[in-house]
Amino acid sequence: MTMNVPAYATLAAKAPLERTTVPRRAVGAHDVLIEIKYAGICHSDIHQAHDGWGEGIHPMVPGHEIAGVVAETGASVTRFQVGDRVGVGCFVDSCRECAYCRQGQEQYCTRGMTGTYNDRDKNGDPTYGGYSTHIVVDEDYTLRIPDALSLDTAAPLLCAGITLYSPLARWKAGPGKKVAVVGLGGLGHMGVKIAHAMGAEVTVLSQSLRKEADGRKLGADHFHATSDPATFQELAGTFDLIVSTVSAPLDLGAYLGLLKTDGALVNVGAPEEPVSLNLFSLINGRKTLAGSMIGGIAETQEMLDFCAEHGLGAEIEVIRADQINEAYERVLASDVRYRFVIDASTI
Amino acid sequence: MTMNVPAYATLAAKAPLERTTVPRRAVGAHDVLIEIKYAGICHSDIHQAHDGWGEGIHPMVPGHEIAGVVAETGASVTRFQVGDRVGVGCFVDSCRECAYCRQGQEQYCTRGMTGTYNDRDKNGDPTYGGYSTHIVVDEDYTLRIPDALSLDTAAPLLCAGITLYSPLARWKAGPGKKVAVVGLGGLGHMGVKIAHAMGAEVTVLSQSLRKEADGRKLGADHFHATSDPATFQELAGTFDLIVSTVSAPLDLGAYLGLLKTDGALVNVGAPEEPVSLNLFSLINGRKTLAGSMIGGIAETQEMLDFCAEHGLGAEIEVIRADQINEAYERVLASDVRYRFVIDASTI
Repeated sequence: MTMNVPAYATLAAKAPLERTTVPRRAVGAHDVLIEIKYAGICHSDIHQAHDGWGEGIHPMVPGHEIAGVVAETGASVTRFQVGDRVGVGCFVDSCRECAYCRQGQEQYCTRGMTGTYNDRDKNGDPTYGGYSTHIVVDEDYTLRIPDALSLDTAAPLLCAGITLYSPLARWKAGPGKKVAVVGLGGLGHMGVKIAHAMGAEVTVLSQSLRKEADGRKLGADHFHATSDPATFQELAGTFDLIVSTVSAPLDLGAYLGLLKTDGALVNVGAPEEPVSLNLFSLINGRKTLAGSMIGGIAETQEMLDFCAEHGLGAEIEVIRADQINEAYERVLASDVRYRFVIDASTI
Repeated sequence: MTMNVPAYATLAAKAPLERTTVPRRAVGAHDVLIEIKYAGICHSDIHQAHDGWGEGIHPMVPGHEIAGVVAETGASVTRFQVGDRVGVGCFVDSCRECAYCRQGQEQYCTRGMTGTYNDRDKNGDPTYGGYSTHIVVDEDYTLRIPDALSLDTAAPLLCAGITLYSPLARWKAGPGKKVAVVGLGGLGHMGVKIAHAMGAEVTVLSQSLRKEADGRKLGADHFHATSDPATFQELAGTFDLIVSTVSAPLDLGAYLGLLKTDGALVNVGAPEEPVSLNLFSLINGRKTLAGSMIGGIAETQEMLDFCAEHGLGAEIEVIRADQINEAYERVLASDVRYRFVIDASTI
């Protein structure tokens, strides 16, 4: 039977979030009911709540960095038991049949993954995200949070963590590799931690040196200001891999100039507007410019296990649900080190 | 002792090429003197003769697709004997000490490779290219042309062949892979032949269907016109690899849409002007946009051996030296199928 659960939602684009209730589907045979403990605030929550990525489905309950505990299991559930510590990331379903789903790359499902919120499930019903007390999710799209991770610092791993882990793993950050992370925010700070744990030599490229002490504490070996033109001269031809987390338009030519031959600049953040690129900056040095979007379910579990093994959680500021709107303002002002996490017991 | 040899040269930017003589250095201990038999005309010869890539060194003798026979060897030469069939490509020296030279990627030498023409050697003397009867080259930058290849159809392999072979090999064109070649000119026609020989399923993306019969003869399995918008719908998400040989500005977003998840669009041609790119077209589908520039000496030898094994030469039209200026006009008008090759005995 459908249940109504407390949640924070927008009732229209750009409206402030307010407390309401939303329906959750009855727990199906393959579903788990999760009691949400913490939900991270991702910058994309704000984009979507503001209809920045097209017309949203309102009421909208954002939140795709969810950590909680299993409260009930469907009759056919085999992987989870009541009390298990679990997480949910950016999607809660996909077609399960296409080549990408079969390869465990559900995020690239040809029919489109089902977003955790601001989307419609296979019955056409809106999906509601993690700013809520409970959520019902198919066990196949539910992650296990290892005991070594606390639920509050684990929540942001479900989006920020996997978004950085996936390209760092794919482009082989590790011993002997020089990796730069552009932007030290919610995504970037996890990039520094993960790349450092993978054994790479890590450089932060941040607008200013304001966060240098933080960056070094997180694991950066070097820290440079991109507002200083000398950075681009000094570091020319240095990096095997640069991961850009910023959504401001980058001077791609300048960043490509920081790569070694065969190096890659991977974008996980991006501006909405097109950027300008001279293709000779790729031809000279056989460089690649790439993109990467979160990760599949199996890879997300691998990331959580990696983070548990290395003791990596996000740097967070836990807030009450009635502080969400204020937190949004602070995210937009870049005034967060490095992720807001909502304590769901306050919803 | 320096010798003067006949050559065709520009005396100033955009001046027609005319017969003259240019100096060749005395054959040093590690040099071979090559009697040039054939020299291909590459589009970049025209760019450089016209100072399209910056101020050129005139008189300029273009030509970096050189096939000939060893006429004399220096005292310390070990790899070649008089009478050997040899080739010279885009560069004739490099620093030999940097990481890239040591890896056999001399084309990315950090101090800059020495171009076969329109460059200066380590003594500061201008280099002169293949539109000439003879050239003196260090044996380490001289390639062996296998007996199975005729010298005239082999000449264009030294630039056009390696420019396509290198990215096709690096991005693993082969059985089970769908590869598109954009543009069916001097570069593209070698791309079709090589990708087909590697076992890939090959599609030509050409402006019109005008060259379809040729494309299929060269080894293409499919042929589509890029002037037809239906091409971009029909082929969406099809290719593992697209190699673009065109120097006209591409609609990168449209071509990236033709790639599968994890696919790569590699540019070996490029417009001088910057192109516009929405980075989300890379993020959705974890795609890569890359560049590639010729290949190293070892890889160029590997390419020549591959072409010999598979019986691949360029499709050529042999011309007399006094037809070079006319041939330039025809290249600029895309009126060549698919490479002009100068018969050096007419110089």
